[in-house]
Amino acid sequence: MINNIYKTSLSLLTDLYQITMSYGYWKKGIHDKEASFNVFFRKNPFNSGYAVCCGLEYIIDYLNSYKFSNSDIDYLSSLKSDSGTKLFEKKFLDFLREFKFTCDVDAIEEGRIIFPNEPILRVSGPIYQCQLIESALINIFNFQTLISTKASRMFYASNGEPILEFGLRRAQGIDGSLSASRASYIGGCSKTSNVLAGKIFNIPVSGTHSHSWVLAFDSEISAFQNYAQVMPDNCVLLVDTYETMKGVKNAIIVAKELEKRNKKLFGIRIDSGDLAYLSKKARKLLDKENLEYVKIIASNDLDEFILESLKHQKAKISVWGIGTKLITAFDNPSLGAVYKLSALKNDRGKWEKKLKLSEQKIKINNPGVHQVRRFIKDGMFNGDMIYDTSSSIIKEKMIDPNDSTKFKKFKEESDYEELLKKIFKKGNLVYKSPKIDQIKKKLHIDLERLDNSHKRLDNPHVYPVGLEESLFMERKKMILSLRDK
Amino acid sequence: MINNIYKTSLSLLTDLYQITMSYGYWKKGIHDKEASFNVFFRKNPFNSGYAVCCGLEYIIDYLNSYKFSNSDIDYLSSLKSDSGTKLFEKKFLDFLREFKFTCDVDAIEEGRIIFPNEPILRVSGPIYQCQLIESALINIFNFQTLISTKASRMFYASNGEPILEFGLRRAQGIDGSLSASRASYIGGCSKTSNVLAGKIFNIPVSGTHSHSWVLAFDSEISAFQNYAQVMPDNCVLLVDTYETMKGVKNAIIVAKELEKRNKKLFGIRIDSGDLAYLSKKARKLLDKENLEYVKIIASNDLDEFILESLKHQKAKISVWGIGTKLITAFDNPSLGAVYKLSALKNDRGKWEKKLKLSEQKIKINNPGVHQVRRFIKDGMFNGDMIYDTSSSIIKEKMIDPNDSTKFKKFKEESDYEELLKKIFKKGNLVYKSPKIDQIKKKLHIDLERLDNSHKRLDNPHVYPVGLEESLFMERKKMILSLRDK
Repeated sequence: MINNIYKTSLSLLTDLYQITMSYGYWKKGIHDKEASFNVFFRKNPFNSGYAVCCGLEYIIDYLNSYKFSNSDIDYLSSLKSDSGTKLFEKKFLDFLREFKFTCDVDAIEEGRIIFPNEPILRVSGPIYQCQLIESALINIFNFQTLISTKASRMFYASNGEPILEFGLRRAQGIDGSLSASRASYIGGCSKTSNVLAGKIFNIPVSGTHSHSWVLAFDSEISAFQNYAQVMPDNCVLLVDTYETMKGVKNAIIVAKELEKRNKKLFGIRIDSGDLAYLSKKARKLLDKENLEYVKIIASNDLDEFILESLKHQKAKISVWGIGTKLITAFDNPSLGAVYKLSALKNDRGKWEKKLKLSEQKIKINNPGVHQVRRFIKDGMFNGDMIYDTSSSIIKEKMIDPNDSTKFKKFKEESDYEELLKKIFKKGNLVYKSPKIDQIKKKLHIDLERLDNSHKRLDNPHVYPVGLEESLFMERKKMILSLRDK
Repeated sequence: MINNIYKTSLSLLTDLYQITMSYGYWKKGIHDKEASFNVFFRKNPFNSGYAVCCGLEYIIDYLNSYKFSNSDIDYLSSLKSDSGTKLFEKKFLDFLREFKFTCDVDAIEEGRIIFPNEPILRVSGPIYQCQLIESALINIFNFQTLISTKASRMFYASNGEPILEFGLRRAQGIDGSLSASRASYIGGCSKTSNVLAGKIFNIPVSGTHSHSWVLAFDSEISAFQNYAQVMPDNCVLLVDTYETMKGVKNAIIVAKELEKRNKKLFGIRIDSGDLAYLSKKARKLLDKENLEYVKIIASNDLDEFILESLKHQKAKISVWGIGTKLITAFDNPSLGAVYKLSALKNDRGKWEKKLKLSEQKIKINNPGVHQVRRFIKDGMFNGDMIYDTSSSIIKEKMIDPNDSTKFKKFKEESDYEELLKKIFKKGNLVYKSPKIDQIKKKLHIDLERLDNSHKRLDNPHVYPVGLEESLFMERKKMILSLRDK
C-alpha cells in the first residue's frame, strides 16, 4: 500500500532522537537488549465512548519495506552537531545500512473497537529497532484511528443513511486526504470523492458537478439539461448556484425530461443555507411531482452533532456529504497515542517490568508485557482486562489504574477473547491483512456488541477497562518504591 | 519535490466530479473554452490578523508532473454508474491520456503575508484543465498556509526565541507531517525533529533522547552520563522521567563532568508539570552552579497562547518544543480556501465576468480576472486592492465587498506592488522557486512591514482589503440583476 504511494524510503520518517538514541545504544553495546513497547492512548477522541482501531495495514507495509537507502545514509552522514562535529560515526551508519527488522509485533486488528489505556500494538525486540520505528508507527495509528472513530460517530448519527466523504480539498496534505479516505470508509462512509483513494484502497467513488458547471452555461436550466444528457445514469444536480428553490424547480423539469428517456434523476444537492428548511421545501415540491425517488443530498460543514440535529428537525435529507469536519477531525484533530517502554529483558532472558513516573498521574505507564482480554456476556462486550503475559495466574478481577476504588469481577467461566494478534514474528510477517470491506464488517459486528450507552455522542457511559489484580498491585508497589527513592 | 516523495501519479488526486464535469465539457465540445479561476479564503485562521502564503513549490511540482498514467486510465475505465453503465467512454479516456497542461498560472509568492478575499492563485485556460487540478491545488495551499500561519504566530509569541517543531507523531498522516514541517520552518521554526523532512526540504534537524533512554539504564544519573559520553557536543538531558528537580540535580552533575572534558551541556528538557514553576526552579539551581549557559527547553502541548502566558509569568525557558498544536493547527485545523470560476472567454476572445450567488453573502464570489495591488506608505503595508486586469482605468478608491460603507482612498502617487506573479505561461513554468531560507526571509521582511496591530494574537486590527471602485460597482450591479431574475 505505502509501496504504491511513496517513492522515497520512509526509514527517515522518524524523530532525530530515535536515531541519536539508537546510536547511543550501539555505542554502549546494548542495542540488542530486548525491550517491549506499547502503543496506547489515554483519552477517547471527541469525548466518544470508544475508538475504532485503524492503520495496521499501513504500518505493516511500512515495517515490511523498512531499510535505509544510500541517500538516507548519505544524509545522516552529513549531519553535524552545533559545534561542527559529525553526529554519527561511519561504523554506525554501516550498521544501519545492514538493518534488518527482527522484532515481534502484536496488534489489535483494524475495525475493532478499542479503549483508552489498553495496548493496541506491542513491539518487542532489539531496543534500537523498537526506537527507530516509533514515530512513524504512532503517526499512522493516531491519524487513521482518529478518522475512523469520527466517521463511525457520523454514521451513528445518520442512523445508517449513506455518508459520502468529500474532504480532499480541506485535508491536511496529500496523505492527510488519502489515508483519511481509507479510515472514513472503514468507519462508516459509503463512498469517497477522492479518485486516487478509490484507486489505491478499492473504495467506491462518487461525484457529480459543482457551481462552476452551472456558471459555464447561459442558464441554470441549460446547465442541468446538458449534465443530464451527459450523465443520465449518475445525475445529481446542484441546485443552489443562484436561488435554491428556483434550482429545485429547474431540476424537476430535467427529471421529467429524463423520465421520457426512461431514466431517473438520482438526486439534487443543496450546499448552502438552512438545510432543514430547504430540504423540507424541496421534498414537498419533488413529491408533488411524483418524484419521491429523487434523493436529497446535503453538504455544508456537517458534523455528527449538526447531523443529529437535522434528523431531529426531520430534515428531508437522505444522503450526507461530509468534508472538513470529518477529514480533519475538526473538533479534536489529534489522538495523542504514545509508545512507551514497559519491559526490558535482563541477562537471564527474563522480562523486567519498567515504569516511568510523572507529576501527572495519567502520564504514568503500565509496566509489563501485556495482552488484552475482552470479556463477553450475553454476546455483548463486558469489560477489557490488561494482564501481564508472564503471570502464572490471571485473576478474574481488574482494577481501574486511575482510581483504585473502581474494580470489576468476571465469572470464572466467562467467555472472552484475546485482542492482540501476532503480526510479525522475529521480523517476519505472519498476518494476512483482511480486505477493506472485511474490516468495515468487523467494525459493524463490534458495534453491535457494544452497548448503546457507550455509543451516545455526548456523555457516553464509560466502558470498563482495568489492570488484572496482580498487575495492578505490582504497579502500585513500583510507583511507591520509586517515589520513595 | 513531490517527485521525490510520491511514486504514484497524482492526477487522480482529485474529486470525481472534476472528471465527470471535464467529461461533460468534452462531450459538449466546450472543454477548450477558456476560464479563469481564483483561489482565495474568506477568513483568516485562528482569528489571526493575516495569513502566510505557503505551498506554491509543491503546487508547481504537482502541475509540472501532471499526466495520466496507464493505470490511472485503466482505473477510470473501470468506473461504473449505479445502473452498471460505464462512467466514461473510451474516446474521452484516450483524450485524457494525451493530456498536456496549457494553463496560465499566476500566484502570490510563498512567504508573503496574505489576507481574506484576495486571489492568491489564478488559473486561466481550458475549462476542463482548470477543473481537473482544483482539488489538489487547494488541498496543498490550504494546509501549508494554515501551518505557516500558525508557526508565525508562535514565533511572534516567543519573541524571536527558537522554536523546535516536534510534531511528526501527532500529525495527520505522513504528508501531514512532512509538508507541515516545511511550512513550520517557513513560518518561523528553527528546526524540526522530522529527519525525512530535514532531508527532503533542507531544514535543520534537532533531537536528543526520550524517557525510554532513561528507563533503559539502572538509574537516571547513569543514563545521563552515558548519553553525555555518546553525544558530548549535542547533549540535552530530559529531566522528568522520575522527579523533575532530582533530574535537574543529576543533569548538573553531568554538566560538571562535561566541563572537565572541556565540553558544555547544551540544555535540559522539561516535558511535563508546571513549566513556569519548574523552569524557574531549575534555572536557579543551574545558575547557582555557574551553569548559566545551560539552556532550558520546554515542551508539553504548547501553543501561542500558553507560550505568551509563560513569557508573562517570566518562565525561564529559552527554547520551545512544539508538537500537536502546531502540526495539526489544533484550534482551527482547516483553512477553507476555495477555487471559484470568475470569468469565461466569449467567442470574440473577451473575458466575461462570472458570479455565483448564495443565500450566504460571504459565499458570493468576486467576478473578473484579478490582480492584487498592495499599497505602501512610509515603508509599511497600507491596504490591498483587488482590481480587474481588463479595466482601462484603475481608481485609487477601494470598497469592502462585505460592507459597502467601508472604503479607503490611496494617493495617486502612492507606492505599490502587484502581488500575483506569473508562474506558468501556457503550461510552461516561467518561475524559479526560491530556496526555503529565502522564503523564510521574505516572510520576515513582510512581517516587519505589517503594523503590529495586525499581529496581535487576539482581536487584531483588520487590515484593509477591498475591491477597486469600478469592480465593486460592476459586482453590485451583477448581484442585483441576478437576484431580480
